[in-house]
Amino acid sequence: MTRMNVSVFVIDCMSENMTEISQLGEFGLIERLTKDFPLRNESSRLGAGDDAAILNFGGEDVLVTTDLLLEGVHFDLRYVPLKHLGYKAAIVNFSDIYAMNGTPRQITVSLGISSRFTVEHIEEIYAGIRLACELYGVDLVGGDTSASVTGLVISVTCIGEAKADEVVRRSGAKPTDLICVSGDLGAAYMGLQLLERENKVAAESGKDFQPDFAGKEYILERQLKPEARKDIVAILREKGIKPTAMMDVSDGLSSELLHICKASNTGCRVYEDRIPIDYQTAVMAEEFNMNLVTAAMNGGEDYELLFTVPLTDKDKIETINGVRMIGYITKPELGAAMVTRDGGEMPIKAQGWNAFI
Amino acid sequence: MTRMNVSVFVIDCMSENMTEISQLGEFGLIERLTKDFPLRNESSRLGAGDDAAILNFGGEDVLVTTDLLLEGVHFDLRYVPLKHLGYKAAIVNFSDIYAMNGTPRQITVSLGISSRFTVEHIEEIYAGIRLACELYGVDLVGGDTSASVTGLVISVTCIGEAKADEVVRRSGAKPTDLICVSGDLGAAYMGLQLLERENKVAAESGKDFQPDFAGKEYILERQLKPEARKDIVAILREKGIKPTAMMDVSDGLSSELLHICKASNTGCRVYEDRIPIDYQTAVMAEEFNMNLVTAAMNGGEDYELLFTVPLTDKDKIETINGVRMIGYITKPELGAAMVTRDGGEMPIKAQGWNAFI
Repeated sequence: MTRMNVSVFVIDCMSENMTEISQLGEFGLIERLTKDFPLRNESSRLGAGDDAAILNFGGEDVLVTTDLLLEGVHFDLRYVPLKHLGYKAAIVNFSDIYAMNGTPRQITVSLGISSRFTVEHIEEIYAGIRLACELYGVDLVGGDTSASVTGLVISVTCIGEAKADEVVRRSGAKPTDLICVSGDLGAAYMGLQLLERENKVAAESGKDFQPDFAGKEYILERQLKPEARKDIVAILREKGIKPTAMMDVSDGLSSELLHICKASNTGCRVYEDRIPIDYQTAVMAEEFNMNLVTAAMNGGEDYELLFTVPLTDKDKIETINGVRMIGYITKPELGAAMVTRDGGEMPIKAQGWNAFI
Repeated sequence: MTRMNVSVFVIDCMSENMTEISQLGEFGLIERLTKDFPLRNESSRLGAGDDAAILNFGGEDVLVTTDLLLEGVHFDLRYVPLKHLGYKAAIVNFSDIYAMNGTPRQITVSLGISSRFTVEHIEEIYAGIRLACELYGVDLVGGDTSASVTGLVISVTCIGEAKADEVVRRSGAKPTDLICVSGDLGAAYMGLQLLERENKVAAESGKDFQPDFAGKEYILERQLKPEARKDIVAILREKGIKPTAMMDVSDGLSSELLHICKASNTGCRVYEDRIPIDYQTAVMAEEFNMNLVTAAMNGGEDYELLFTVPLTDKDKIETINGVRMIGYITKPELGAAMVTRDGGEMPIKAQGWNAFI
């Protein structure tokens, strides 16, 4: 039995030898925490470090991913409706399973609920989860529900399925592979900027204020009701394309490109003028006086698929509506860079969302 | 797109038609939330309502359970060391898998970390998780790490494995089955009472206070460093005993007996003088002037196994050290009751831990 230190255990005190979490950042912290965990079981195929863990039961690959959403960090209930929140909490997990080229099958949902919530509020969250489950064919199979003395906590775990030769990791990209991305980028981020601005104005203007979202529906929807790219995974399969590497764009394209390059031990070149951006995103960036490409590269929460394919799949990729080739994989010594419109090169740095800054 | 109500979405307002969560309680809330979720996938065998969900991949049963631990609700860092907290967070999930007669194989761990924590604090939590994983042969395969603006949040999901004919649910108990329980009950609860008392005294006495835990090691250990009954599951298998129903004692024996009776559509009789109680638990209850049997029946957090076996297994059960027969299953119309020492009957009521009261 460990000696007990009742009331002496004061975690608030920072001694000299302590390391602040912001020094490591989220990915650094995860790496440090998980490095001493060997995989012992035959059923554990891949641990932390990809969009999902890969397990194997009865010869089938089983994918597991989990996301923790905390009030005040990941969402703001002043402008996020509870139903949308439930929907998004499910979708971001489905997205991780698709990013492994798998199919999401089950989720568990745990909720920490503070006393200001009623049963009807929680039912709203579940209505969003239910809708997501229906649309994506996923079953809710369990969870945990508890009171919270602080804010709302949502923890979702998703289990997916894949044939053993179907799974795509981040680590398979090879030099000359084409880099592709689905949909467009930066819209969810601009939607968030808009919501935060209108919320601030609303707070200052009082009850009669009505925000005008006309013409901005797309960026709002991208922020509040994102979708997972089930359709893209299906069409790639249909066309006989198996990506060499894949992940979803949750932290921003820059951050994800670096993940793929690191895991695959490669560099990359992406072309600034190939980054897909919707016109509403562009208009909003203009209105906010923000650099459009920076928003698209670093905004995050797009839940699009970023993947690499062999050069030989170029013709097939060109026939897919909604997928754009944005660059190519290089040898590692060339590093990761963006080729700007004027032909220059800018190193890609991760400026993605970091909850610890 | 749903119409947006920026800053009009005030969840704090309780309208007349709203239901407070405490009216339903934890189990009532879960039942209401999960009732509209059909299982669509062939791989989903059992959803919410048991210790773990049952999935099936490649002909093998895969068990999934999840627990959410919130600072200020489930643990108090004034007297719970972080390493113990990590250990316990893992163990309570392993326990749910053993309670299905399965073997825990993988866990994911998500943490919400407030700014008062350093990297070294988080490493302490992980040291506890690592120790639990080593001792129980479980692999850490992923998770999510985020800042928290409120307290510490720990969400653990555990994946277990079982042959398809091995899984034991809560629903298989039959009249005349013997009710068995491993270990002893009420100790973790008395340990908690002791810690809370000493912590209060410490706060009042200032820095020099040293709590005296001599002779109380067992109840403290039961609260701070519980174990999952891997050994009991192994010995039952060894002796060729497959329980008809099983679950772990996390909310208290009363609550769990009612779960088994409800799921199996039976009643039960348990004998007051058969409830296993350690002498430290008895001494502590005396000191606190608490009813000992109430503490043992309703304390919770014992993580012992409660199971039922056919009467024909009686002789085998009697040879197992650390398992006690405490009663028997009856027809449903007889209800659930405890036979007191004087031969009377007292209806069993769930007074287990409820985070929503």
